[in-house]
Amino acid sequence: MNQIPTIKAALLGAGTVGGGVYKLVQRQKDELPYKAGANVEISRILVRNTSKHREGIPDELLTDDWKSIVNDPEIKIVIELMGGIEPARTYLLEAMRAGKQVITANKDLLAEYGDELMEAVTENHCDMLYEASVGGGIPIIHPLKQCLEGNDLTEVMGIVNGTTNYILSKMTGEGMDYAEALAQATELGYAEADPTADVEGYDAGRKIAIMASIAFHTRVKFEDVYTEGITKITAADIRYASEFGYVIKLLGVAREQEDGVEVRVHPMLIPATHPLATVNDAFNAVFVHGDAVDDAMFMGRGAGEFPTASAVMGDLIDAVRNLIQGCSGRIGCSCYKKKHIKPMEQTSSRYFLRLQVEDRSGALAGIASVFGNNGVSIYQVVQKARHDGKAELVIITENVEERRIRDALTILQGMSMVREISGMIRVYG
Amino acid sequence: MNQIPTIKAALLGAGTVGGGVYKLVQRQKDELPYKAGANVEISRILVRNTSKHREGIPDELLTDDWKSIVNDPEIKIVIELMGGIEPARTYLLEAMRAGKQVITANKDLLAEYGDELMEAVTENHCDMLYEASVGGGIPIIHPLKQCLEGNDLTEVMGIVNGTTNYILSKMTGEGMDYAEALAQATELGYAEADPTADVEGYDAGRKIAIMASIAFHTRVKFEDVYTEGITKITAADIRYASEFGYVIKLLGVAREQEDGVEVRVHPMLIPATHPLATVNDAFNAVFVHGDAVDDAMFMGRGAGEFPTASAVMGDLIDAVRNLIQGCSGRIGCSCYKKKHIKPMEQTSSRYFLRLQVEDRSGALAGIASVFGNNGVSIYQVVQKARHDGKAELVIITENVEERRIRDALTILQGMSMVREISGMIRVYG
Repeated sequence: MNQIPTIKAALLGAGTVGGGVYKLVQRQKDELPYKAGANVEISRILVRNTSKHREGIPDELLTDDWKSIVNDPEIKIVIELMGGIEPARTYLLEAMRAGKQVITANKDLLAEYGDELMEAVTENHCDMLYEASVGGGIPIIHPLKQCLEGNDLTEVMGIVNGTTNYILSKMTGEGMDYAEALAQATELGYAEADPTADVEGYDAGRKIAIMASIAFHTRVKFEDVYTEGITKITAADIRYASEFGYVIKLLGVAREQEDGVEVRVHPMLIPATHPLATVNDAFNAVFVHGDAVDDAMFMGRGAGEFPTASAVMGDLIDAVRNLIQGCSGRIGCSCYKKKHIKPMEQTSSRYFLRLQVEDRSGALAGIASVFGNNGVSIYQVVQKARHDGKAELVIITENVEERRIRDALTILQGMSMVREISGMIRVYG
Repeated sequence: MNQIPTIKAALLGAGTVGGGVYKLVQRQKDELPYKAGANVEISRILVRNTSKHREGIPDELLTDDWKSIVNDPEIKIVIELMGGIEPARTYLLEAMRAGKQVITANKDLLAEYGDELMEAVTENHCDMLYEASVGGGIPIIHPLKQCLEGNDLTEVMGIVNGTTNYILSKMTGEGMDYAEALAQATELGYAEADPTADVEGYDAGRKIAIMASIAFHTRVKFEDVYTEGITKITAADIRYASEFGYVIKLLGVAREQEDGVEVRVHPMLIPATHPLATVNDAFNAVFVHGDAVDDAMFMGRGAGEFPTASAVMGDLIDAVRNLIQGCSGRIGCSCYKKKHIKPMEQTSSRYFLRLQVEDRSGALAGIASVFGNNGVSIYQVVQKARHDGKAELVIITENVEERRIRDALTILQGMSMVREISGMIRVYG
């Protein structure tokens, strides 16, 4: 190969993923001319504190001066791995306006300002690649935008948060309760000191918003996503679910129906035989249904230094290939539709319910009539442990609109024979 | 969108997949300008018999004249779905020389003449896309060539033949023997009248050759692949494997080791907890290990009209995007290395063995000493059913070179106390 060109890139951020990307580029140094058609050099790394040494990263690459990157005409690609909204948003916009290609792993930003960023992509006819924003190392964005693009996709459903999947796996496998499993996840570094974004489903909500936007060719923002976390899931829910043949997972669900699309994150009972049911611990998986491909699933490590760096490297090779071939901006914004996003009350599902009721004759009949009056049909009901004049009812309903189940539960809550509504979890299928 | 260009394409073959592709292009007619940047028109379909009507395909598109396609300057893309070596090979080469982009699902051709076809790709700087050649609708070729390209991939392992997976699933789930499961697969149309290519592992061998070529950047041909089918697998093998915590699958395995790469197809015991273990019936799955991504898995339907058409459509959109952006041939041949391909005798594995031996004192000691003398360590041994003066030994060995196990079995076969060697199946891990 004669006269191999060299493409210079800058990293924004030198944390776990930034460090991983730098090391991986070094590791692949001799391969990149063959793989991408060019040498790739990380020539600048933007950090807040330039005096702090980072293991494996030469100090002389560090800078705290964004202008020295965005104004350097030799830097053709900017890789944003800082996270958060600002200054990441401004930097990405400025980089695109300066004629650079951009790569980002920033799900928060994409789920909130995806439309603004995509407008900049269209205006500047540049690449903005973001494979690492969903599912860590799992190839999913590119397969959705390319390999499966000949489909009408009607469902994208995924386990896209490793922290909650670890917690639920521990609760399921070892019978732990939520607090104990969370404590273990925190100790092992799987959960952050403030686990809110993970356990309340916000992180998964951003990822499903990104995937839904691609799958339905319709801009879906985080604010459009209904989110419900795992903090109310108990060991009893998991045990009863198992008796019915289900496991409980925190799922991001994007589904197209005749009257619009649904995009939501919540715990869900899925059949123990479903491919997603065996995806445990820190693994992520995304399940896709399309009119042509039927069912497909993608699984892998949802986070971590090198798995995430693997996704960024795939994007980097993609961007370099496009630069070499003169076709940057080859795949731009794909949101050419504006499908209606249904409010949660209008979605339909089956529901798993756990009620503590007075153990007296007529109780079941009274409860059943509330469901019946609200159009909720019961699919299965089991009466569990009776003691202290109290009985526990575990119910799985037929498919019904969410607002109807909410109405029924509101009425039940006001009835003297109902002591407590202990659980309400949606059921797949 | 003003002045949307129209790209014309020709189909070679109007069988199951060809028909599916034609229908899918029609179904996506209004979407393709947005998805691919152009209208796509199938303007000619090459068939052997033009007078036979095909449901859903206009008769006037049919032709038996290849020259009318290859000499038509308006046809920019040729989609080969005829299968077999000739005339597919000649047509693809002629199409590329005539300046056309090509798409093919032809695993036989790619696994045998991949080098010749890739030379034509390089010479003509054109696209040759073949996502549909492996794993039906599952995106795997593109993820390997693009998303995971920043990895050193060390293992690609897959269930890539639906017929044998169906047969083994039935044997496992319902205790059927091989002949019964094959008969059912034939009746349901999962197995062809002559099932040789499937049950002997040739079909899987072609697919693993294609994936290994990409993963290891080294041309691997079908003739380099060791193949062993499932015809000798018995219900007893499956039952005993299950007792040890394993299921039996026909796997294509490509693995890089320090002294070279191994590429092989054979039945294998995999732990029941491995993600591939739950891939049943007509589903396919490919498991990948890379230095950065760690483990990843891709699952979906391995065959069928629309799943395969989904993969072809992904390639078609890719080729159209490249034509519109002027970057055809963007990802060319990636075999820039020549890694040594190890002969099967030099590979290492653990082995599951089933021996019928004389039930007399000293038999086990005699057998154990043959293993010991040949450097084979026993990991587990169970003595099963004893009757008629005969005992059955089920053995799992430690990891050992294949030639050593073969030597040991040759010696055992000559010993009077060994009545029969009933099974020898490799064990994962």
